[in-house]
Amino acid sequence: MRKLRHEEISRVSASIVRLVPRHPITVVLDNVRSVHNVGSIFRTSDAALVERIILTGITATPENPHIHKAALGAQDTVPWEYKQNAATAINDLRKSGYTIVVLELTDTPTQTTAVTREEFPLCLVVGNELSGVDEGLVAQADYALEIQQYGAKQSMNVAVAYGIAVFDLVRLLRGLL
Amino acid sequence: MRKLRHEEISRVSASIVRLVPRHPITVVLDNVRSVHNVGSIFRTSDAALVERIILTGITATPENPHIHKAALGAQDTVPWEYKQNAATAINDLRKSGYTIVVLELTDTPTQTTAVTREEFPLCLVVGNELSGVDEGLVAQADYALEIQQYGAKQSMNVAVAYGIAVFDLVRLLRGLL
Repeated sequence: MRKLRHEEISRVSASIVRLVPRHPITVVLDNVRSVHNVGSIFRTSDAALVERIILTGITATPENPHIHKAALGAQDTVPWEYKQNAATAINDLRKSGYTIVVLELTDTPTQTTAVTREEFPLCLVVGNELSGVDEGLVAQADYALEIQQYGAKQSMNVAVAYGIAVFDLVRLLRGLL
Repeated sequence: MRKLRHEEISRVSASIVRLVPRHPITVVLDNVRSVHNVGSIFRTSDAALVERIILTGITATPENPHIHKAALGAQDTVPWEYKQNAATAINDLRKSGYTIVVLELTDTPTQTTAVTREEFPLCLVVGNELSGVDEGLVAQADYALEIQQYGAKQSMNVAVAYGIAVFDLVRLLRGLL
């Protein structure tokens, strides 16, 4: 077994990727503080081929050059938009038929692997590194995804938790989980 | 549905977690450059309850105070050790019955969900952010895990890729995938 050389890794050009149907998952990043996390989430979102990222509240947009170092170009391959108010953005998605799902610890947790294909298109809401998803958004969501944790801390980096959740969703959609 | 308050999130104390059997996964972090990534991987490893992290090469150890900001205490709940040479550390694990698995793009990829329980105890090797897992380690590994990606970049942050892979492994072990 040997590692692939850089030029052997099959990459689809950005112009081709633009023509491929994207997974029906819209991500809302509300009040994510760290540009490093936003950039990393863009990079994961390119890999997961989600349809769109909506940045809300204080979340920095790719116009902030510090995002580029972590996003490594993914800010140009994942469609994104900025909206001031997350609740309004989410309401609009709900009216368009989206299931609204928050990534948060709640009194009624759902494991990511319990999601069914009928729940797509799906809006996945990710919140602030310290305070999590806003309580008002949690109250209005259809359900909350939780990644079962086994250690002492019950806390993961937001970009890592998002990566686990979104890859579960994509693989469920594709019948791989 | 409502968000759990901080005090409602059930946490097991570090002293109890020390008594719980840990998942038979040893993680080797070889030449991971960023202390932010090392800290984040500690945090994920606490959540995944892996048995141990072996830091090798230039990978910073928790003696580096910059790790603490990203690890948020997980450096004290996950057993770790430092060894200069990754190949030696991995050979010792192999002799102890570990399956050696690299997280890398290779000519013979294995999806994480294809791993079976017979392959534990398992050593998961994670490499440098830019150059990946060392070619010599790849050549000696039993197989290479790959997270199938759908976008234009074919590259994820190492701490995010590790999170996806290790949570797949833990859930496979527990019969949840």
